[in-house]
Amino acid sequence: MSHQQLPRSQQHKQEATKTPIYLDYNATSPMSSQSRDAVIEAMYTGWQNPSVCSRTRSIVEVARKSVADLIGCQPAELIFTSGGTESNNWAVKQAVWMYRNLDRAENAIVGRPHIVASCIEHDSIRKPIERLLALGLVDVTWLRIDSSTGALANVGDLVAALRWRNTCLVTVMWANNETGAIFPIAEIANALSEWRRLNSLTVDSSCSSYANSGLPLFHTDACQAVGKVPVKVPNGLDLLSLAGHKFQGPKGVGALYCSARLRAKLAPLLLGGGQENGVRAGTENTPGLAGLGAAARLSKTQLDDVDGRQPLMVQLAEIRDQLRDRLLNSINDPEMSEFTGFRLIVNNNFPNGPTLPNTLNVSVVSTKLLQSAGQSKELATDNNTDDMELREAALARNYLLSRGRILASAGSACHAAANSGASAVLLESGVNPMAARSAVRLSVGPDTTIDDVLGAVEEFNAALLQWRIEHPSR
Amino acid sequence: MSHQQLPRSQQHKQEATKTPIYLDYNATSPMSSQSRDAVIEAMYTGWQNPSVCSRTRSIVEVARKSVADLIGCQPAELIFTSGGTESNNWAVKQAVWMYRNLDRAENAIVGRPHIVASCIEHDSIRKPIERLLALGLVDVTWLRIDSSTGALANVGDLVAALRWRNTCLVTVMWANNETGAIFPIAEIANALSEWRRLNSLTVDSSCSSYANSGLPLFHTDACQAVGKVPVKVPNGLDLLSLAGHKFQGPKGVGALYCSARLRAKLAPLLLGGGQENGVRAGTENTPGLAGLGAAARLSKTQLDDVDGRQPLMVQLAEIRDQLRDRLLNSINDPEMSEFTGFRLIVNNNFPNGPTLPNTLNVSVVSTKLLQSAGQSKELATDNNTDDMELREAALARNYLLSRGRILASAGSACHAAANSGASAVLLESGVNPMAARSAVRLSVGPDTTIDDVLGAVEEFNAALLQWRIEHPSR
Repeated sequence: MSHQQLPRSQQHKQEATKTPIYLDYNATSPMSSQSRDAVIEAMYTGWQNPSVCSRTRSIVEVARKSVADLIGCQPAELIFTSGGTESNNWAVKQAVWMYRNLDRAENAIVGRPHIVASCIEHDSIRKPIERLLALGLVDVTWLRIDSSTGALANVGDLVAALRWRNTCLVTVMWANNETGAIFPIAEIANALSEWRRLNSLTVDSSCSSYANSGLPLFHTDACQAVGKVPVKVPNGLDLLSLAGHKFQGPKGVGALYCSARLRAKLAPLLLGGGQENGVRAGTENTPGLAGLGAAARLSKTQLDDVDGRQPLMVQLAEIRDQLRDRLLNSINDPEMSEFTGFRLIVNNNFPNGPTLPNTLNVSVVSTKLLQSAGQSKELATDNNTDDMELREAALARNYLLSRGRILASAGSACHAAANSGASAVLLESGVNPMAARSAVRLSVGPDTTIDDVLGAVEEFNAALLQWRIEHPSR
Repeated sequence: MSHQQLPRSQQHKQEATKTPIYLDYNATSPMSSQSRDAVIEAMYTGWQNPSVCSRTRSIVEVARKSVADLIGCQPAELIFTSGGTESNNWAVKQAVWMYRNLDRAENAIVGRPHIVASCIEHDSIRKPIERLLALGLVDVTWLRIDSSTGALANVGDLVAALRWRNTCLVTVMWANNETGAIFPIAEIANALSEWRRLNSLTVDSSCSSYANSGLPLFHTDACQAVGKVPVKVPNGLDLLSLAGHKFQGPKGVGALYCSARLRAKLAPLLLGGGQENGVRAGTENTPGLAGLGAAARLSKTQLDDVDGRQPLMVQLAEIRDQLRDRLLNSINDPEMSEFTGFRLIVNNNFPNGPTLPNTLNVSVVSTKLLQSAGQSKELATDNNTDDMELREAALARNYLLSRGRILASAGSACHAAANSGASAVLLESGVNPMAARSAVRLSVGPDTTIDDVLGAVEEFNAALLQWRIEHPSR
């Protein structure tokens, strides 16, 4: 086929306009006007120190109430932080500190503190754990991911990993940032409570301190879920992280939920002044908190049930599904696919598990590579597949993103496996390595329109056509 | 004297207006319009992730250049943080980590890491050190403060406290938040370099690793100095903390300067994504950083030499001196003082040391208590002075601040000594306990006007008169 003979459906579309289309809400989101206005107002009138000014103290407490209402907890259970990373780092340290204190005080614990975490946690959980591991200070069980759910195969696997008298922390994200896979947090919380109860029945004096300690703590990184799906703190959850900029709020502010039962034992990560009842020092970012509160109030409205449906979730899912179906229909159209030599694969279509309504993870893969690669299961476990062909799998994807019309993530930069450029999260989730290497994470938000969808589909097609024209032999 | 017979000078002033006068710039400052506008613009157009958006990456790098220009360092030597508290906590941990790594790697170090710090450091330095001390992980030398300078008696005392092969950190604030006393940071940096050089000459193999380690690190908490006096990183300084909201910038953003020589050894405090070249995880707060950069550019203009004078410093000192002189003249006017029974004492008038141009620390003390107390030096060292009279010393001050017209700090809340309510910083600085217990920190800023000064003086007088009318027998 000559390069001039474009598929008929594409012949009039070669001059795409250059307005960028933002499809990276899972990375960060534009601010809602409500949140922005709240920040602006507080910069004018709410800059004073809350410790001496009742007006700005009120800004902080209104924000705390708003976030508490969003996630269904008490305001006193929320501590404001600089964002999800700080909250996540803090949760890991808190659990290890508590275990060490127990060990010191009671001389009753055998061995090292043990952490149970999913193997697709965000870097702000994974790296603090890996540092402790490298220092020989903890043992870790990384829970495998089930390819049919993108999350855990079953909660029993998690319970089986727990070690009585050693496990200090279970940390499992509410929703994954790359695939949107949702973990059964309430079910895990239940199972942990039951495990604790059963083991406590057989307590002898040598381990009563552990039984009474409240360990293991159960933490969830909910940064990616809050504002997209209803996130309500279940019984048995100790710690939860959230970040304002993931749900149309300001950057640089977040919170750590700490259950009332744990609150008295919470040790500061950052020490200094007496802010946040002595557990989080640093002058309060009152404008940021005003914006966080406004974002939480908006999210609550958007996610509240209306006749059993959540308007925002429906809206996000409809837009996401439009994007998915139109991309599949056009890119995998036989004439188009034959011309470009590419097929679109959806990476986060897990048959047995829910995902965030806004997340679509796709790959454009060469039909030639697909045919030669054979069965995907073999690929996923075969280290020899790291060859030239697979390295080339990312080139068309990189070209697409480099054109700058679609703003989206190539997986998650921080998760790229060192040797291959493939997303470790996708590999762990059972996506075949070729797809994991050429993935594009498309995440829509409340402001995403059908025009954005149409533009993105047009751009995908235009980019693949242009790529083929420029690289006829690949 | 009857309560109706007010001093003539005060008879027409009893109806003070209720517009609050902000004299608490050392706690936090209103934002400059430049900084606020930069935040607002970035909230609209600069919210995208810098890792994928050149426009927002540019916001971050312009801010970095602006802050670097302000403190005279290379942009690459600045890491953005959530504020002064995070920067200070990080500096302490970095030094202890480096020492431990050395210890582990070389098996060459004897004993525990040792920290040298002034005894009037901010809580965000003092408390992280105290936690390490409580855990038995460090030794600490707290340097005493000289009452003639409010800072160190001489740098020799600091050098004498250093322990070859043990000292991992010297941390001394650039300027104290309560008294404004300025420490000789460049001189200390020089002395440390010289001490390192001299000790290295006599190195034997057992301590070459320490000699080559770059330890002890020299850190200064410059949060209170930046924007008020020229702060230029001197040779030999390793780490410096600054916070945006102390110099008319946004809250929730700050920076840690880390010298080029130390940069490769800097370990993250918060782990996660690869932001800030991998040493400070967390999505960049681009609007906050835009505001920080704007604040730094404004401060640089304000502090740049004009014919050998810094316009802002002159302006601040003039306003501060007006406030001091007018308070002294009116409150200590014989007729007024006889009626009220109070005298004003200036707590931060150190004969041999410089102070910040904006800081005035005063106390209103009962003339009766002053007479019965006798010599202040005895008071300062006598534990038996913690009696009813001294507890009452704070009552008139508390009443003044409770009226809400003057917004100022009663010392620094976090520094209040547990048993007396006296400022530990003032006690350490040689201020007599009675004064330390009734201190008011007045700190002016670029927006403070002569009308603010006149209003504050009026309010001081009105409050003392009213207090006396309501408590005739005290």
